[in-house]
Amino acid sequence: MAKDRPTILVTNDDGIYARGILSLIEVMKTVGNVVVVAPDKAQSGMGHAITVGRIIRLNKLDHLYGVEAYSCSGTPVDCVKISIYHVLKKRPDLIVSGINHGPNNSINVIYSGTMSAAVEGAVEDIPAIGFSLMDHSRDANFEASKQVVKRVVEQALERGIESHTCLNVNIPNVPYDQLKGIKVCRQAHAFWDDAFEKRTDPHGDDYFWMSGKFRNHDEGEDTDVWALENNYVSLVPVQYDMTAHRNIATLNSWDLEFKKTQ
Amino acid sequence: MAKDRPTILVTNDDGIYARGILSLIEVMKTVGNVVVVAPDKAQSGMGHAITVGRIIRLNKLDHLYGVEAYSCSGTPVDCVKISIYHVLKKRPDLIVSGINHGPNNSINVIYSGTMSAAVEGAVEDIPAIGFSLMDHSRDANFEASKQVVKRVVEQALERGIESHTCLNVNIPNVPYDQLKGIKVCRQAHAFWDDAFEKRTDPHGDDYFWMSGKFRNHDEGEDTDVWALENNYVSLVPVQYDMTAHRNIATLNSWDLEFKKTQ
Repeated sequence: MAKDRPTILVTNDDGIYARGILSLIEVMKTVGNVVVVAPDKAQSGMGHAITVGRIIRLNKLDHLYGVEAYSCSGTPVDCVKISIYHVLKKRPDLIVSGINHGPNNSINVIYSGTMSAAVEGAVEDIPAIGFSLMDHSRDANFEASKQVVKRVVEQALERGIESHTCLNVNIPNVPYDQLKGIKVCRQAHAFWDDAFEKRTDPHGDDYFWMSGKFRNHDEGEDTDVWALENNYVSLVPVQYDMTAHRNIATLNSWDLEFKKTQ
Repeated sequence: MAKDRPTILVTNDDGIYARGILSLIEVMKTVGNVVVVAPDKAQSGMGHAITVGRIIRLNKLDHLYGVEAYSCSGTPVDCVKISIYHVLKKRPDLIVSGINHGPNNSINVIYSGTMSAAVEGAVEDIPAIGFSLMDHSRDANFEASKQVVKRVVEQALERGIESHTCLNVNIPNVPYDQLKGIKVCRQAHAFWDDAFEKRTDPHGDDYFWMSGKFRNHDEGEDTDVWALENNYVSLVPVQYDMTAHRNIATLNSWDLEFKKTQ
């Protein structure tokens, strides 16, 4: 019987003790056999970083959350890689990442460790979904999110996710009965207007804190920003071909001939 | 007179003392006014990571390489951000990243700190180019690469780079007269077949080294992998919309209606 249940890898970027991953595990336990491999500390903003030139530690945490669980010293992408190639030694049926404390819509998909874990699943051609709640706080309330997770995961397992893509799900921070529905969207065109605040440490040396304001310059009603502003859950299909195909013709008109007489 | 020269930001992911960035600076000094902001240590594989929840240090290195230069404790993307929003306090005319010691073609564009710095330029709508040589060694020979850099940068400044895109240039590790030319390509479809080697430290605790083999499963002669295998420099235009637009219709057929009766 247990054999028919899907093997589900759960990870995140807020660290294995975050409330968001606990909520995700709770839902996933109702769906399949759960293995958790998640960072041993917060890894927010790690993007698609992997650990190169440094060692990785992996610690088995017996019976954490009642499932097989490991904390990993590496990045979210490291967690996915070590799960596939060492812990499970097989491909899980599904990878879920999150639930992130804070949004990963729009441009944030490239900065987000949560989403990079899902993208790594897509690279490995494993169905993968990242979930994020629009609330950065440690004690965010994930009750409505759990309902959304269950609905999306059930559909993903039933319908399948297109090969070499994953899903980016962002959830407005409102009670479940105020959610208007789930809207399939594209990533809004936006950027971060950053600021670096200079401070001086007790030894007289300067250091900086980076902060930023999210600036959307995309009015499209088909975007994730619009959906979230209107209390819809946004669902964006994500791929990792970074090629700007439309520019290839223009670049072919450049003068790139080598002058062999140097 | 100096006013007509473009302001060029130079960064990398191998760290400010790498041979590759020195070669890049040497070329850029012949083209414009150079400011260097690069990591104070190797940041390979950092992808689009940014420093969140930790401080950033920035140190002015007077007259390093004869130009205005700063080492930064952060990631390559941090370097671009702190350059725009703090060091320059304006948008440079061009961002160049590299020359990386090792390839960043195909799927490596998402793992690469070198390319993520260029992508951050694209996000900020600043022309940006990442350069990589197919040789990981510290004492790699960048002489042929310098010729390629000069040709591509001259064309980029003359013709412009499409808004919100950047360029990914990879250079075969052969002498200049064996390079067949520069080929505009798309990113090949590939992945890393990873391995985790378990070792035991002197205290009896396990740790892992991640390694991997690059696996190309894309036979296209329009790919960067093909170009590089055939001694062409590959030039891939890069964008950062991760939306899998072709999947939106399929996802709209999913049953995502909320069951409001819980």
